[in-house]
Amino acid sequence: MTFPAPDGLMPFYAMDILNRAKALEGQGRTVCHLEIGEPGRPPAPKVIEAVSRALPDPQGYTNAKGMTGLREALARYYEEQHGVPVDPELILATMGSSAGFILAFHAAFRPGARIAITRPGYPAYINTLIGLGFDVAEIPVSAENNWHLTGAQIEAAYRQAPFEGLLFASPANPTGAAVDRGGLADIVDTCKRLGITFISDEIYHGLDYRGPSVSALELTRDAIVINSFSKYYCMTGWRIGWMVLPEALIRRAEILQQNLFISAPTLSQIAATAALGEREYSEQQKAVYAANRILLTKGLQEIGFDLAAPADGAFYAYAGISRFSNDSMAFCESMLEKAGVAATPGIDFDRNGGQSFVRFSYAGTRQTVEQALDRLRTFVSAGS
Amino acid sequence: MTFPAPDGLMPFYAMDILNRAKALEGQGRTVCHLEIGEPGRPPAPKVIEAVSRALPDPQGYTNAKGMTGLREALARYYEEQHGVPVDPELILATMGSSAGFILAFHAAFRPGARIAITRPGYPAYINTLIGLGFDVAEIPVSAENNWHLTGAQIEAAYRQAPFEGLLFASPANPTGAAVDRGGLADIVDTCKRLGITFISDEIYHGLDYRGPSVSALELTRDAIVINSFSKYYCMTGWRIGWMVLPEALIRRAEILQQNLFISAPTLSQIAATAALGEREYSEQQKAVYAANRILLTKGLQEIGFDLAAPADGAFYAYAGISRFSNDSMAFCESMLEKAGVAATPGIDFDRNGGQSFVRFSYAGTRQTVEQALDRLRTFVSAGS
Repeated sequence: MTFPAPDGLMPFYAMDILNRAKALEGQGRTVCHLEIGEPGRPPAPKVIEAVSRALPDPQGYTNAKGMTGLREALARYYEEQHGVPVDPELILATMGSSAGFILAFHAAFRPGARIAITRPGYPAYINTLIGLGFDVAEIPVSAENNWHLTGAQIEAAYRQAPFEGLLFASPANPTGAAVDRGGLADIVDTCKRLGITFISDEIYHGLDYRGPSVSALELTRDAIVINSFSKYYCMTGWRIGWMVLPEALIRRAEILQQNLFISAPTLSQIAATAALGEREYSEQQKAVYAANRILLTKGLQEIGFDLAAPADGAFYAYAGISRFSNDSMAFCESMLEKAGVAATPGIDFDRNGGQSFVRFSYAGTRQTVEQALDRLRTFVSAGS
Repeated sequence: MTFPAPDGLMPFYAMDILNRAKALEGQGRTVCHLEIGEPGRPPAPKVIEAVSRALPDPQGYTNAKGMTGLREALARYYEEQHGVPVDPELILATMGSSAGFILAFHAAFRPGARIAITRPGYPAYINTLIGLGFDVAEIPVSAENNWHLTGAQIEAAYRQAPFEGLLFASPANPTGAAVDRGGLADIVDTCKRLGITFISDEIYHGLDYRGPSVSALELTRDAIVINSFSKYYCMTGWRIGWMVLPEALIRRAEILQQNLFISAPTLSQIAATAALGEREYSEQQKAVYAANRILLTKGLQEIGFDLAAPADGAFYAYAGISRFSNDSMAFCESMLEKAGVAATPGIDFDRNGGQSFVRFSYAGTRQTVEQALDRLRTFVSAGS
């Protein structure tokens, strides 16, 4: 089968970059990995200890919704970080945010329903929707507006062709854009007025550099909130996340979970419960990203990439390359081959305008960012 | 939302039994757990050791298909256990067999396609298909034919109303029925002749009491094979399984995995790789099930349950209760309240004929089975 498939399913170009980077490393070259959206550190020591203690026990299935202790700890997290009470019975532990999306789509909609997302956006959004047989509406956001989505844009897109749901991330991948409380309220209110089910992807919450992330739960109980331990808690490979569902959807989501997934990995639930008590460790990691963010943004600007102020959150810089190329994949390939810097072509995030952009991740070490910038200076001055 | 939902999605009655059993235990009563389809033991010691060693490292995402070492070990498993060479590139590590089903359905079919399953069958089959927007054809199998499915039955159902796929398990849940090589060849050949995509659920492979399980891979390369470490390797809560795909579907399945799940849990992949080298431990567990199988079957027969010879495989006895009741849920509730024996009502597996059956699992200890039989004798002689 060749891709894009008839239904529009597409592979990640980032994977081709990663494979090529590994091949180069196999030949003895060093590669600065700025293509990977995951922290390079393990979770906090107390997380490892909790798992070590549990390891000799049989790790059977848990309840479909997940361990009570984990869901109670998550309820405390919402109380402490967001000042909102959440009933643990409305929380469901998932196999990463990935399974959360699948459960959200099938709990709230019927296959074929039209769901809106932003463009650019996380590539799994469009591919998961297409792969599961949903229809997709893309709402373009632009660098001119700092990649922010507004209620007016949602309404304009809806008037053109209505949709039943909106899936939106703040902070966002690949742009790092985050809306403030007023911006999120504008989105929530617009969805409510138009009868659109709002799915709030809060996976980059905590990784915010302008002020604390606002959860949709602070504004409404009608949204589906999806989150994960992958990013802030350094637990990507553990495949553990959670969702908070409206009363009207929790039972259907629970039954879907029973059947589609049974339960989230048990050791990962134990690890996640411990991680929630170790936010200080996560804040130490965040301090590294925060320094990298300034360093990388300034460095890329000096080199000639189009990039406004450092992004609001997450650990990405979505940089314009129009001064160098109008083919983001060719540019990334060349940057990898000649400079040994791996980054992700914009076409992974935007099938239209992505040719003019590249996503750099600064989730790695300061040294990686410094070395990448040195290499890029030489690469660009050599005429790329 | 009440259930069954408009689309036919239904909860597991087994969960109600489990919750009631836990409530009784909370009141200080002891319950014999024969409702749970999972081994009570942890995985082999060397599996725990391998995970302990890896634990301090960052556990990032793996390749979408899974770690090369795991897929190579699985290829060796097929060579050694089934005498067939399998290209590791056609193997995909999944989040349990659960994710394998989702990937199989969406790799091979479009939503709305009609997929056949047996009745009775694993309840997640019908609910996952319904939940994902597929159409379901149920082919009834009967105790008179030892719950076996034949090519003639497939063809008869297909002539009534065609379907694009057949999902079939051998050994099966809840009946324990397993087809031999000739029986599987009959099914494979019938599917091939009628243009039906065959999905072979081999999750209970290894737990076979009449002879080694036959993999569909011994007979065809056009089938999708789904398997898991949950049962034979005692790893239910680890959520790790695998699939083997035909050449024509592997790339689409890989891209779906990238988007729908990213990758299977990393520690579970490490554990699974170690588990494949520890089959002796699994055979020790199987010896317990094998003894329980005889003990439970004979005991249930003596008590008055309808049950032919001990089942071919898995760790279930699907016993007729028509001498006692025509309401399997009421019977299970009464058996739990009065006798302290938890089992799963047949209606979880068969929405039509399941009222006359109960599934007992013998994955637990011999002591549990003995105590349950003692209690059932009293329960039945008291007029149930």
